[in-house]
Amino acid sequence: MARNEIFGSKIDVLDYGFVRYVDSLGDESAIVQAARVSYGEGTMTARDDRGLIRYLMRHHHNTPLEQVVLKLHVKAPIFVARQWMRHRTGSFNEVSARYSVLPSEFYVPQIENICHQSADSKQGRGGALAPMAARTIRDEMEDDMRNVFDHYMENTTDETVNLARETARITLPLATYTEFYWKIDLHNLLHFLRLRMDNHAQKEIRVYAEAIARIVKAWMPVVWEAFEDYRLNAVTFSGPEMRVLYGLLVTFIENQDDVAAYAETKRDDWGLTDRISKRELRAFLEALR
Amino acid sequence: MARNEIFGSKIDVLDYGFVRYVDSLGDESAIVQAARVSYGEGTMTARDDRGLIRYLMRHHHNTPLEQVVLKLHVKAPIFVARQWMRHRTGSFNEVSARYSVLPSEFYVPQIENICHQSADSKQGRGGALAPMAARTIRDEMEDDMRNVFDHYMENTTDETVNLARETARITLPLATYTEFYWKIDLHNLLHFLRLRMDNHAQKEIRVYAEAIARIVKAWMPVVWEAFEDYRLNAVTFSGPEMRVLYGLLVTFIENQDDVAAYAETKRDDWGLTDRISKRELRAFLEALR
Amino acid sequence: MARNEIFGSKIDVLDYGFVRYVDSLGDESAIVQAARVSYGEGTMTARDDRGLIRYLMRHHHNTPLEQVVLKLHVKAPIFVARQWMRHRTGSFNEVSARYSVLPSEFYVPQIENICHQSADSKQGRGGALAPMAARTIRDEMEDDMRNVFDHYMENTTDETVNLARETARITLPLATYTEFYWKIDLHNLLHFLRLRMDNHAQKEIRVYAEAIARIVKAWMPVVWEAFEDYRLNAVTFSGPEMRVLYGLLVTFIENQDDVAAYAETKRDDWGLTDRISKRELRAFLEALR
Amino acid sequence: MARNEIFGSKIDVLDYGFVRYVDSLGDESAIVQAARVSYGEGTMTARDDRGLIRYLMRHHHNTPLEQVVLKLHVKAPIFVARQWMRHRTGSFNEVSARYSVLPSEFYVPQIENICHQSADSKQGRGGALAPMAARTIRDEMEDDMRNVFDHYMENTTDETVNLARETARITLPLATYTEFYWKIDLHNLLHFLRLRMDNHAQKEIRVYAEAIARIVKAWMPVVWEAFEDYRLNAVTFSGPEMRVLYGLLVTFIENQDDVAAYAETKRDDWGLTDRISKRELRAFLEALR
Repeated sequence: MARNEIFGSKIDVLDYGFVRYVDSLGDESAIVQAARVSYGEGTMTARDDRGLIRYLMRHHHNTPLEQVVLKLHVKAPIFVARQWMRHRTGSFNEVSARYSVLPSEFYVPQIENICHQSADSKQGRGGALAPMAARTIRDEMEDDMRNVFDHYMENTTDETVNLARETARITLPLATYTEFYWKIDLHNLLHFLRLRMDNHAQKEIRVYAEAIARIVKAWMPVVWEAFEDYRLNAVTFSGPEMRVLYGLLVTFIENQDDVAAYAETKRDDWGLTDRISKRELRAFLEALR
Repeated sequence: MARNEIFGSKIDVLDYGFVRYVDSLGDESAIVQAARVSYGEGTMTARDDRGLIRYLMRHHHNTPLEQVVLKLHVKAPIFVARQWMRHRTGSFNEVSARYSVLPSEFYVPQIENICHQSADSKQGRGGALAPMAARTIRDEMEDDMRNVFDHYMENTTDETVNLARETARITLPLATYTEFYWKIDLHNLLHFLRLRMDNHAQKEIRVYAEAIARIVKAWMPVVWEAFEDYRLNAVTFSGPEMRVLYGLLVTFIENQDDVAAYAETKRDDWGLTDRISKRELRAFLEALR
Repeated sequence: MARNEIFGSKIDVLDYGFVRYVDSLGDESAIVQAARVSYGEGTMTARDDRGLIRYLMRHHHNTPLEQVVLKLHVKAPIFVARQWMRHRTGSFNEVSARYSVLPSEFYVPQIENICHQSADSKQGRGGALAPMAARTIRDEMEDDMRNVFDHYMENTTDETVNLARETARITLPLATYTEFYWKIDLHNLLHFLRLRMDNHAQKEIRVYAEAIARIVKAWMPVVWEAFEDYRLNAVTFSGPEMRVLYGLLVTFIENQDDVAAYAETKRDDWGLTDRISKRELRAFLEALR
Repeated sequence: MARNEIFGSKIDVLDYGFVRYVDSLGDESAIVQAARVSYGEGTMTARDDRGLIRYLMRHHHNTPLEQVVLKLHVKAPIFVARQWMRHRTGSFNEVSARYSVLPSEFYVPQIENICHQSADSKQGRGGALAPMAARTIRDEMEDDMRNVFDHYMENTTDETVNLARETARITLPLATYTEFYWKIDLHNLLHFLRLRMDNHAQKEIRVYAEAIARIVKAWMPVVWEAFEDYRLNAVTFSGPEMRVLYGLLVTFIENQDDVAAYAETKRDDWGLTDRISKRELRAFLEALR
């Protein structure tokens, strides 16, 4: 997504939803500026801004990331919004179904997203249902929700009934679309993305996280690259796992004359060009020993 | 509610819901203890613990209240839980409908709680519907939700269909009961109660707030009394309102020889016994001048 | 302060300190925009933006205020920064005395601010010392701090000693100047201002709050006016005080034919022009009854 | 430390400081209880409580850890307290030097802790000074601080001077001891420990973190073990590092018939007994491929 496409345009998500950039505070230079206040002379060794941002991300120096803020306008099903709002660090302004009659918009999954309960995972979905069976389920879901919404609309708009909106809405499905403004600092936004882009997250929130990721990537390319390297693609090994790894590597490394030289020859094959400096590579191999 | 009824028993709320005391950290003496650390010699003038707690509440010295924590187990409809979780300062552990099949339990309002949209207030409910009309609405709501739940149960428990739970649940109504553990410090709990016991809060969350109020009152009678005096029954006048009030009172006070003496003679009539000291009363009248 | 003076210029505070506007997210229209998402049709009755902002402030609908953010660069003595950082809702990036040698800058109070301990208040200051005595104290403070700083500078900059900065700094006084970036949303900023502009706040933080108030006032005049009316100049009466007030007013009001008409004739005398509508005035008098 | 030594006794830290257990909410069974609410049927596979706690920690399911709370009484130098209070998630009640005259207690480092500025790290300390030089520095620090405290005591306790405490304290050193109550949930406590037990943390806060670690370990042995395995001793590799590791391992693994079998034979040598199950080990090796 080109940088100028972010502003003002909205990214469609699911059947009625979207993510729309509203405003932001600061950019990559604001992160650098805040870091230089904190670390003063200590930041001089980081030769350039990219190096400094990568350094901050690598070492979990998160406070400068809090100095940058993103504000989005989101439309999403309520079951997605419920997961979203468990993140307590952002500010939300959501449409209230006590004040307003909600439009008749609810999420209906596509055929290929109607899946069996996963056999391995207690929380996930497994393989897709057979198309015929999926279609039957889908139609039933749609009919049931349509029926509920028809009654909701009658009860709230028929002037004789004129049912209190706060009561009428209690039958509405969790798939009902809601809208909200979300203001979040970059540190907490990246945390949200890491959790919600994960393949254990429910697919319907993952597509929102991916839409937001496109915005962040266009807005802050250096931060995004560092986020990929040090968070999304990073892997944490537990203490016991480290002992296994160490055991295996020692066996290997003992049989190699110069692991560092070997690794350097593989730099391009392993896709490392400009993502790890010679010094970092050597430090890493040293650490593995 | 007697003190020993709090522990282990649950208070029923709505048709299937409840509030159950689980555990707590500290009590009124813990508030006093924390305040005495902060204010040291400054707390000596408050002769006793009741006086000190009232002083803290009166002057919004809230941090000692944060040292006390309450943990509750709550069962409530999702539309109530949604309002609840907008309070970002507590910790929640809620049942996940991705992991578990929810039981077929949903809130159906009683006939007398089925009301028209309020004419004055954009958010509230007005007068009750005629009983016949209310019954029709109520039956329709119940039927619609029963229908949705029947399909949900079939789809999640029929082994052939075995629909992913995270997908099946999206048709469930906002009236579906959910359960959660809620851990909250006393300062933020009182803030929650003030907002949710207010008569602008939706009735269905108000009854939960009132159940919690009974627990807090039995657990911390002095705090509760101070909370009533300095929060629930307190009234804030804006700057312009203060000028009106001042204008009216000056006219009155000019025509009274000794307002303080007059007020003292009324102490019992006005229900002030032991809720305002002679010194506070005089200071208040002085402030009004 | 004119609007264009805010940006880029810094406001001097105390002897070496300052408050400098760095950046902001949103303005008054962003508050209105967020409120209209939340309250939808409910906001139509507020005819204009000023009315809506005043309505939000009056009814403590705070979430739209969280959508607006201010970022400041502050230089202040450490004892002031310590009070500041007890506000946990903002983001701070402070210079680290582990990374950098701090310059030899420390706050020395002016003669007229060297006062006795207050006799009434356990926390405040009372009358000023006699000028001669104050000057003696002031000189002693300055000498002591200068002495400490001289040793600090020697120990950190003499290449032979080269004392670890994190150790050298422990002797530095609480009056040492520190610097930080502070990012805070408007709701929490106003809360900060209310506490720190209060005359119980220590004078040295009050002058910072007042400098920030000038920025907010220039940036958001309507918000500021509402903040004055509904927060700074508002007065809260406890339940018992309300009973006194009610008792006095009933006596007065019984002897007046039409309080509302009387109050209307006083509108200008009482400085109410455009700060309270006819409807609000009548509602207020009704409430007092 | 035996379990019964935690309660009521304080652990001395530095020259005048301490950490004292005050109270707590919940224990390991409270974590399990909260997790079983959230994950319902999903938690059945975790056969026992230890397994469930390790599962939660391994997968960063942190909310059940928030249900447990620890309250400590701490006495520490102000420069340590300043680092401590940057953790915004806990509740603090600190002694106020506006209300009370602080006792003449300040931290003086021991000879062996008086070190040069580190050559490698911008923030750390390097090798110790020669004992003679260290003693000179130490004596100078002590004299300077003693001098400041003598003046402070005179100015606040001499009835003629009776200097306002809030003014007198501004010359006090950052090494001055302060006291506070700290209430923190377990999730945020472990985060604090991870940062402050790290060898980049300043030694003077590290010793407090280590004292608290002893309390947590005695209070919650299973949590502590999992914390060591999945946090303290865990290592995170960035995306680029993973590519290096992968490159090295592929070379090794290609030359091994059965890495899993090989690793199993090494289980005891590598210290893995009961810290990694056969299934986890196989999954880990699979992941490395």
